[in-house]
Amino acid sequence: MRDGYSPTLPTMGTTESGGDDFVQLVIGNKNFSSWSMRPWALLTHYSLKFEELRIPLFVDGYQQELQKYSPSLKVPVLIDAEPTVWDSLAICEYLSEQYLDGKAWPASRQKRALARSYCAEMHSGFMAIRNHLPMNCRARRRVELDSTVLGECQRIDTLWADARERYGSQGDYLFGGFSIADCMYAPMAMRFHTYGVKLSSLSQQYLEILLKNPAVNQWRSEAESEAESLPDFEFGDEIQD
Amino acid sequence: MRDGYSPTLPTMGTTESGGDDFVQLVIGNKNFSSWSMRPWALLTHYSLKFEELRIPLFVDGYQQELQKYSPSLKVPVLIDAEPTVWDSLAICEYLSEQYLDGKAWPASRQKRALARSYCAEMHSGFMAIRNHLPMNCRARRRVELDSTVLGECQRIDTLWADARERYGSQGDYLFGGFSIADCMYAPMAMRFHTYGVKLSSLSQQYLEILLKNPAVNQWRSEAESEAESLPDFEFGDEIQD
Repeated sequence: MRDGYSPTLPTMGTTESGGDDFVQLVIGNKNFSSWSMRPWALLTHYSLKFEELRIPLFVDGYQQELQKYSPSLKVPVLIDAEPTVWDSLAICEYLSEQYLDGKAWPASRQKRALARSYCAEMHSGFMAIRNHLPMNCRARRRVELDSTVLGECQRIDTLWADARERYGSQGDYLFGGFSIADCMYAPMAMRFHTYGVKLSSLSQQYLEILLKNPAVNQWRSEAESEAESLPDFEFGDEIQD
Repeated sequence: MRDGYSPTLPTMGTTESGGDDFVQLVIGNKNFSSWSMRPWALLTHYSLKFEELRIPLFVDGYQQELQKYSPSLKVPVLIDAEPTVWDSLAICEYLSEQYLDGKAWPASRQKRALARSYCAEMHSGFMAIRNHLPMNCRARRRVELDSTVLGECQRIDTLWADARERYGSQGDYLFGGFSIADCMYAPMAMRFHTYGVKLSSLSQQYLEILLKNPAVNQWRSEAESEAESLPDFEFGDEIQD
């Protein structure tokens, strides 16, 4: 079912009302828009004030609405000072610089470089996972994983386990404390959970910690209450728990 | 023709020899590896000392050689302190922080945010161009552009022209002075030149400036002298000038 677009969408969740002392984040459907989730999780984890402008994608009229904010018709977009900032990674960099004194990255330069390598690999890659295992937060599905998808899952497993082995003594997240790297990989945790992808024990522990993170958990629960259903992104057979 | 892999490859170009006071950059073929070009252009433009480790891709045995530096079998990789830094964008961020006091980004925070948006859009997108117009520095080719490729070319044209309109009075490059954004888009300039893509006059002026940049020009001339030919990446019909 694809609902018609409603021009008076309610904003949800962490929305703050009134004043102009907060940023606005334009996002897509919480259940499906993995790129939207990343800066949203950063804003929410650090309790930064923001207004969420949710534009359900692929429902009638969404392009006209989205075009007001995003000439490339992509989400997310951050509206703060002029001009707008777009793309998940650029938004996270900006938020960290502008509102968090850089603390959304690890403090050590070498560790920060590694975290940025992890983020960049996520940002430019894992096309098979993105095509064959779309984020679908509220679902539990069974799909056949071909060797390309499996190879990419193994690569992420290796990245997660390596980071946890290296920095596990410093905190629960990939680089010890919570960072942009955790935001970037959170939608992968969602997918692995949805499709039951098997991981090494270190990576599985990390996935569970990420799913319990309050910001990630809030996104997931708000995804569950969304009305839109997009059959084109509902892959695989439902798993009954 | 695909040559067998030679384990004693000569390094080329800006290579410095001896000592350990410089970084090493692992790259692929200069003619074809657009991601390699980006941090190479940054290092070269700013006259940073580095050793180039060129591993011609897709020739017999290249994977074994590449795996020594890059578990994901991707280039580029930067070898400096442990651990290595990988992915073009993460390497550029690291070089700017570690060796350039951040000056590879614009100094103003808003301008830097916009430059990072440009870079992130390049880094995660333009798949149709990447699939249908592979970088092929030394060639001049005629290809049919379908509507998806054309749409992406127009988007880049808009991005370039917008930046030049906004910052043209401050210098010759996208954000006035040379920045990581110019490195990220340099391989697009190569492609537009190779395939004769028509651009607005502001974007065409920028393309010509970029092609004349000494670092970009050096990469291009070294690409011309490479021996490897990769027929799978030689698209379209040759144009006789």
